[in-house]
Amino acid sequence: MLDLSLPGDALTAELVDVPSVSGDEARLADLVETALRRYPTLNVERDGNVVLARTSLDRGQRVALAGHLDTVPIAANVPSRRDGDRLHGCGTSDMKSGVAVQLRVAHLVGSGALDPRVDLSWVFYDCEEVEAARNGLGRIARTRPSALAADLAIVLEGTSGLVEGGCQGTLRAVVTVRGERAHSARSWLGANAIHAAAPVLARLAAYEPRTVDVDGLTYREGLNAVGIAGGVAGNIVPDECTVSVNFRFAPDRSEADAAAHVREVLGDWSMEITDSAPAARPGLDAPLPQAFAAAVGGTPQPKYGWTDVARFAQLGIPALNFGPGDPNLAHKPEEYVEVARIAEAEAALVRFLGGG
Amino acid sequence: MLDLSLPGDALTAELVDVPSVSGDEARLADLVETALRRYPTLNVERDGNVVLARTSLDRGQRVALAGHLDTVPIAANVPSRRDGDRLHGCGTSDMKSGVAVQLRVAHLVGSGALDPRVDLSWVFYDCEEVEAARNGLGRIARTRPSALAADLAIVLEGTSGLVEGGCQGTLRAVVTVRGERAHSARSWLGANAIHAAAPVLARLAAYEPRTVDVDGLTYREGLNAVGIAGGVAGNIVPDECTVSVNFRFAPDRSEADAAAHVREVLGDWSMEITDSAPAARPGLDAPLPQAFAAAVGGTPQPKYGWTDVARFAQLGIPALNFGPGDPNLAHKPEEYVEVARIAEAEAALVRFLGGG
Repeated sequence: MLDLSLPGDALTAELVDVPSVSGDEARLADLVETALRRYPTLNVERDGNVVLARTSLDRGQRVALAGHLDTVPIAANVPSRRDGDRLHGCGTSDMKSGVAVQLRVAHLVGSGALDPRVDLSWVFYDCEEVEAARNGLGRIARTRPSALAADLAIVLEGTSGLVEGGCQGTLRAVVTVRGERAHSARSWLGANAIHAAAPVLARLAAYEPRTVDVDGLTYREGLNAVGIAGGVAGNIVPDECTVSVNFRFAPDRSEADAAAHVREVLGDWSMEITDSAPAARPGLDAPLPQAFAAAVGGTPQPKYGWTDVARFAQLGIPALNFGPGDPNLAHKPEEYVEVARIAEAEAALVRFLGGG
Repeated sequence: MLDLSLPGDALTAELVDVPSVSGDEARLADLVETALRRYPTLNVERDGNVVLARTSLDRGQRVALAGHLDTVPIAANVPSRRDGDRLHGCGTSDMKSGVAVQLRVAHLVGSGALDPRVDLSWVFYDCEEVEAARNGLGRIARTRPSALAADLAIVLEGTSGLVEGGCQGTLRAVVTVRGERAHSARSWLGANAIHAAAPVLARLAAYEPRTVDVDGLTYREGLNAVGIAGGVAGNIVPDECTVSVNFRFAPDRSEADAAAHVREVLGDWSMEITDSAPAARPGLDAPLPQAFAAAVGGTPQPKYGWTDVARFAQLGIPALNFGPGDPNLAHKPEEYVEVARIAEAEAALVRFLGGG
């Protein structure tokens, strides 16, 4: 039984102590569902291992608070361990401290301690840490997008308490350089495809990524080789070398624009685009996100990395990341969260929701 | 039962029709041994799957005829198939046609039809097509080098009937380029090791290999990337890229000279030499090889590729390749031999051995 009246740090520890590796979230989803059903003003629904809750206060505007319940595999770091100002354990930063903040807001609203100026929705979902096809938020976006409808979505992924708006898009492509195979003892009869990849790598090394303002945030792009392979045997001049590249692009580019750009940079060689995912505009120039950013304080930052905010952006909902975890500690055995960040995140949300 | 009085092309077909993939040469070695033992003037020995034979005619000089019994794996190309001027099948070029010529010379000498001006030794060995440690000729060179003693060794590997002298040396090295790992969404925090490999590949692409005369033959060298690998995952700026290179060097360089040269070319990066094998000088300036070259006619060529002649050269024995097979067809499913080359090779040896 989860007690949502506990302080956020204690609640985080409770959540960490219930293992919920991707695919195995049922028990934690049960506990979250049961805890939320204790508040009569919240309308709670269960959909697979996704738990949805919402207020119906006719506020005219709605803010969604989203977070995933699953973690990467446990690395001898459960149960949680408190050490001074830090709480150690699997999921402390990514992102059970964020889930604790979601639940704390539900408790404050559900118990009447906080009268929010907007309606609220909560989404607790499964399978964020595995292949995109299994992502619980993605499933709800496909099967019942109206359950996610909101004027602003806040994904409580770790940002160390900063507001991070939108997200980069990502595109992968494979450049194939061809040559002519020959025995390495008679190399002049062939054409070395690995040697021929030199200008591809030089082009990438010389590439100057763009820095661009979108909706008031400054995004940096990057075009990188993330893999290279070539070679047949130790005595063969190889006839093929492949370079895999990853383009991270700012939200002012569509996927099609991004593909055209990569084709322009690497179009001298044979290239195939293997996958892409769109960027999300931060939308921080709208009044509601601006009010939230003001409540948090500090300067909103662009999100570097593709995150589930893009799933809201694809539904036309401005979305940002804001959570107590430290993104640099995600997926590491030594993962921890600074406990002060948890209360700070809760306080910022209370300021935002109580204001106006 | 092998009948060595058959013409060389028919004998080649008989040899091809006895499968002898590396490691599985016992049956063919048995047949060769039994056939040779029928000639009382030949002293025949069996050592594992190596068959040795020799004359004892007190000629003062000795020529060794060497060939391997094994083939690469069969590719639906056994039994042999005659098609006009060509005999198709696994080992036709590499090198059962050469073995047939060895056996034909043994028949002519053993039956008294040819009175050779030098003593002769024959070496039929196993496991040439697999890792060097299993090579039957190498084993004999280590365990009883006196069995290989000669003034000239002729290895009947396919040369399309040309005399090819000596062989290149070969050296392998791995160049490691390092960077700093980062998430590809924040690539400016890292240093891309694949991008940093661009100048390594450019250096190799710009390398101008030497052409050099050794003992009257012109050798071409080559320095090639034969493998490249790098990459951690599709979203990671990689911190390491390795380039495997193969240097084929002329016989005027020792292994140490070759290593120093590669270090000079690629010394700007971390490099490890992983293996090397010495070159063999052609030795074609000595009288016996010159007489052989004259008997064959045409212009001797350098051997491009490391071959078992180097095993003789390491024992101080001048060695050359001369065989009826076509080296460009070796290891190919469509392997064949031009049957005319088989009789021509036998005739050249008879001219050489009968002369003087």
